[in-house]
Order: sequence, then C-alpha cells, then structure tokens
Amino acid sequence: MDQSDFSHHYIQRFNAELEKVRTDTLAMGGLVEQQLADAVQALVNQDSELANHVISNDVKVNGMDVKVDELCTSILARRQPTASDLRLLLTVLRTTTDLERIGDEAKRVARMAVSTSSSIDVKSAFLEIEHLGEQVRAMLHGALNALARVDVQAALEVAQQDKRVDREYESILRQCMTYMMEDPRSIPFVLDIIWAARSLERIGDRCCNICEYLIYFVKGRDVRHTDLEEIESELKKPKY
Amino acid sequence: MDQSDFSHHYIQRFNAELEKVRTDTLAMGGLVEQQLADAVQALVNQDSELANHVISNDVKVNGMDVKVDELCTSILARRQPTASDLRLLLTVLRTTTDLERIGDEAKRVARMAVSTSSSIDVKSAFLEIEHLGEQVRAMLHGALNALARVDVQAALEVAQQDKRVDREYESILRQCMTYMMEDPRSIPFVLDIIWAARSLERIGDRCCNICEYLIYFVKGRDVRHTDLEEIESELKKPKY
Repeated sequence: MDQSDFSHHYIQRFNAELEKVRTDTLAMGGLVEQQLADAVQALVNQDSELANHVISNDVKVNGMDVKVDELCTSILARRQPTASDLRLLLTVLRTTTDLERIGDEAKRVARMAVSTSSSIDVKSAFLEIEHLGEQVRAMLHGALNALARVDVQAALEVAQQDKRVDREYESILRQCMTYMMEDPRSIPFVLDIIWAARSLERIGDRCCNICEYLIYFVKGRDVRHTDLEEIESELKKPKY
Repeated sequence: MDQSDFSHHYIQRFNAELEKVRTDTLAMGGLVEQQLADAVQALVNQDSELANHVISNDVKVNGMDVKVDELCTSILARRQPTASDLRLLLTVLRTTTDLERIGDEAKRVARMAVSTSSSIDVKSAFLEIEHLGEQVRAMLHGALNALARVDVQAALEVAQQDKRVDREYESILRQCMTYMMEDPRSIPFVLDIIWAARSLERIGDRCCNICEYLIYFVKGRDVRHTDLEEIESELKKPKY
C-alpha cells in the first residue's frame, strides 16, 4: 500500500466515523421525539402504563448520549480534526446534551401523568397541553430534520416557532391561575399541569439551541445570545 | 533558535493559552456567583434597582461565555490537543454552558423581584428563599473552588449537597401550596415565589453538572447519569 492509498483509506475511515456520529445523533433524536410524544399522550390520557414506559426508557436516552459523546471525544483525540469537521463534532456534543435534557423534561411530564389525579374537570387544560405538546414536537422534528439536511433556513424557521410556543404557554398559565383561584382544592393538580406546560416550553427553548448550534456549524458564527432578526441579517453578510 | 528552543517556546505558549482558558472560566464563574447572590437579595428585599442591575448584567455573562468558547474552539483547531488537554477544553466548554444557564436562572429570579408585589405577608417564604439561595450559592462557590484546585473530593462533596437543596425546595413548594389554598388572592404572587425556588433548585442541578465535568476531566470517566454512591466506588477503581 503506497502513501496515497494509505491517506485515501484514512480519509475514508474518518468520514465513516463522522457519518456514524451523525446517524447516532439522529437516532438519539428520534428516540427523544418518541419519548416526548409518549409523555404528552400519557399525561393527556392519564395513561400510567405509558408514563412508566417513558420513565424507564430514559436510561436508553442517557446511554445514547454517553455513547455519542465518547465517540466524539475519541475522534477529537485520534483524528485531531480542524475547521468544519471540528465544528461538526462540537455541534454534536452540544446537540446531544440538549437532546438528553429534552429527554429529562419528557420524563418530568410523564411523572405528572403518574402523580396527577383530579376530581375536577380540566379537560380543556389537557386539550391545551396536548396542543402545546404538538407544537413543541413539531419544533423538535423540524430541528432534527434541519440537522439531518444541514439546512440553515429550516433551522431559522424552527427557531421562529418558539414565540408561538411561548404565547401558548403563557395562555395555559393564565388559565391555570383562574382554575386555582376559582377552586383552591384544585391547586395541587393544577400545579402539575403548570409543571408539564413549563417542561414543554423549556423543550421549545432547547430546540432553538439545537438550531443555533447548526447555524454555528454551517456558518462558523456563534449565534447564541442573538435575536432571530439579527441572526438573519448576520447570515446575509459574507462569512469571515 | 534551534528545534528544542522552538518546541519549548511552543509548549510555553500552549500552556499560557490553557491557563487563560482556566482563569477566564473562573472569572466568569465569579461574575455568575455575584449575579446569583444579587438576584436573591433583590427578590428578598424587593429591591427593583438591584434586580434591574442583575438583568442588564446578564449580557456580560453571555459575552464571557462566547469569549471562552471561541478561545477553546480556536485552541482545539490550532493546537489539536490530546489526552488531558483535550479533556480540559471539553470540560471548560461544558462548564461555561452551565454557568451561562445559571446566569439565565439568576436573571429569572431577579425578574420575579420586579414583577412581584404582594399585599399579603409572606416574610417566611422569603426567609426560606433566602436560605435556599445561600445553600445554592455555597454549592456554586464550592464547584468553582473544586474546579480551580482540580479537587475531585471537593467536587463530590458539592454534589452531595444537592439532596439537601432538593429537600429545601420541596418544603418551600409545600408551604407555597398552603398559602395559595388559604388565600387564593395570593396565587399570582406565590407562583412567582415558586418560580424563584425552582430556578434556585435548577442552579443546584447545574452545579452538580459542573462537578461531574470536573470528575470527567480528572478521571477520564463520564459520570453523568450515575448515582453519587456509584461514582464514589467507581473512583476507587484503577483508572482505565
């Protein structure tokens, strides 16, 4: 094997490793998306069996997180990548951290399904939680798709949805306060609804984080702590 | 300049860069610690001026986060470090993310000081918030000290304090529920107390994260998702 064969082989193996990081991250994202969907369904349908399934499944999410992180660290140590390969690995390290924490929030929502039991009728609160859950799940799905297709425009669109999620969350919060004031006995139950809503709202924030990491990966710019409008106008400037 | 002079010079500059990363991270930690202390004082003393100071100061925290991250990424790209240097940089990248989010939580607590105004007497709730704030601040201080001295044992001790913080938080939550049930008009106000308590509890979790990153740095083991008891017994095993 001559030198060029060797480097060809080396690059091929490096690319295969990066591809594995990418597919493992997306697989982890798929599992987290399922956990989120199941957690919301468990809460809304008061399905404690499904809730326990979500809670016990969280170990799998954590295991995938550790696995991807170890793979990234090992590639960083052995291959010493630069430029876009380095940025890809840092993006993945950050993304899996947020995916893992989204998994934690899903587990929290599922726990509410187990603890929550109410004599009062709050079907409409569940309806709104279900709606919020769908919006947040769409954000997560969009963020993972943007990551899979390395699509900055799609990432920006996902980040824009967060404002609607925040409004929906505020609306649920106001409604919950009304419930509690009208019937103080409902307070422990309604607080659980509030925790679930807050977890979902936080998941929306984390989806935004993932989109920002993707923009960093593609554009080489750190856009955390930057308004969406600023990001859009920044992205139109030439790359430094 | 002969080859050994050159490599000596190169290593010196590399060490100076790593030292800068370390001091910048600790400086960021110091600012975040101050933000946390000020936020709790602002809430407890209903000091809206101090609260606004904390809120506007958050930009500084974000700026330090971006600066340290850029320095780490640039070192990773130029120096291609391996082994413990690589682990140090990954530890710092993770730590600054958590410090930045602790800053966000402090800002949330400060916001409660601005929005909160109550006609009812909830001095005892504020006392408990102050107490929780002190415990959490001690955790953050301990985590930063452990990081500064690279002290795994100290990191473990900080992580152990989180259980007490969780118990304190649960106690505040129960007390708040009682307030709300006794006087439904207090609900909006008491909810703000609950948000502040939850932010503080989350800061405790993030201090644990920082301790876990430090253990990873020193021991080369990923101890996230592991019980404290398991970590302690793991650390007694020989290093792989």
